[in-house]
Amino acid sequence: MANYVFIAESLDGFIATASGGINWLNEIPNPDKSDFGYNKFISNIDAIVMGRISFEKVLTFDEWIYPKPVFVLSNTLEFLNENLSGKAEIIKGDIRNIISRLNQAGYKNLYIDGGKTIQSFLRENLIDEMIITRVPVLLGSGITLFGNIDRKINFDHIRTEVLNNHLVQSCYKKSIK
Amino acid sequence: MANYVFIAESLDGFIATASGGINWLNEIPNPDKSDFGYNKFISNIDAIVMGRISFEKVLTFDEWIYPKPVFVLSNTLEFLNENLSGKAEIIKGDIRNIISRLNQAGYKNLYIDGGKTIQSFLRENLIDEMIITRVPVLLGSGITLFGNIDRKINFDHIRTEVLNNHLVQSCYKKSIK
Repeated sequence: MANYVFIAESLDGFIATASGGINWLNEIPNPDKSDFGYNKFISNIDAIVMGRISFEKVLTFDEWIYPKPVFVLSNTLEFLNENLSGKAEIIKGDIRNIISRLNQAGYKNLYIDGGKTIQSFLRENLIDEMIITRVPVLLGSGITLFGNIDRKINFDHIRTEVLNNHLVQSCYKKSIK
Repeated sequence: MANYVFIAESLDGFIATASGGINWLNEIPNPDKSDFGYNKFISNIDAIVMGRISFEKVLTFDEWIYPKPVFVLSNTLEFLNENLSGKAEIIKGDIRNIISRLNQAGYKNLYIDGGKTIQSFLRENLIDEMIITRVPVLLGSGITLFGNIDRKINFDHIRTEVLNNHLVQSCYKKSIK
């Protein structure tokens, strides 16, 4: 039972441009059509928890990309389009309560996605493992992966791989020391 | 002739706490007394350019740590203590002019240090190579390595090493593509 982050960021810590743009991720050279470890990661995940902003971004994609149930953290959304039935649903409440309900429903390993959502989990020290892929670009501005949180959190470095001689992907686990 | 960055940052992109504290760097486990590549790096450097804030931090250290001349970028400082004679001097002006003067004086490879100074060089696209060492901690707040700059800058990934099974040190060169 753990909460995971799997995300790409620029060297200056942005996950999207200020307007939410992620085209810069499509500029990553990928001649081998690598999935950069995503399928291995997602195969271990039971459900995805994301914020409304990320969810609305996902809805602009040509197709639904998630092989696991998505829970959209939102206290404002009332309902989702019926074509998302069985794929995504809204979940409300405080974070500890939400995790507890999901775990009890059998969703043990959660993929936590979106800057604000990740930050709110970190504020409660509820992120267990992070796989962060660093793209060698300075975006200059945008939406940050991490924000100000009122605590220091130590992680253990688990492994680092260079992908495509371009990306640096590191796995960190929350330190129990 | 190139301008280099060699710096450690937290996972959330901070180089110091909000009050300039760097004790968190002393918490890095280092049983082998590694210099984490610093001596190799500095041996290739002709001079160090740093901002006033970093300089004032350096002055709090027990001893003068730099084996190469230090130029303190400041338009407000008027003079330095005489015990720094031959070690550090103040340099004023705009960045391109400063680099040009240093290069002409024989200082070809410059180590650019301090958050604000690095950011001002990046705004002019004048950083050629960055060696960034990521420490597996979220500080939560502090002084950022990178700030908002009004441009996107692509880098090439040159190499990554894991040091002490704890730090991830990556070298990036400004992309000419």
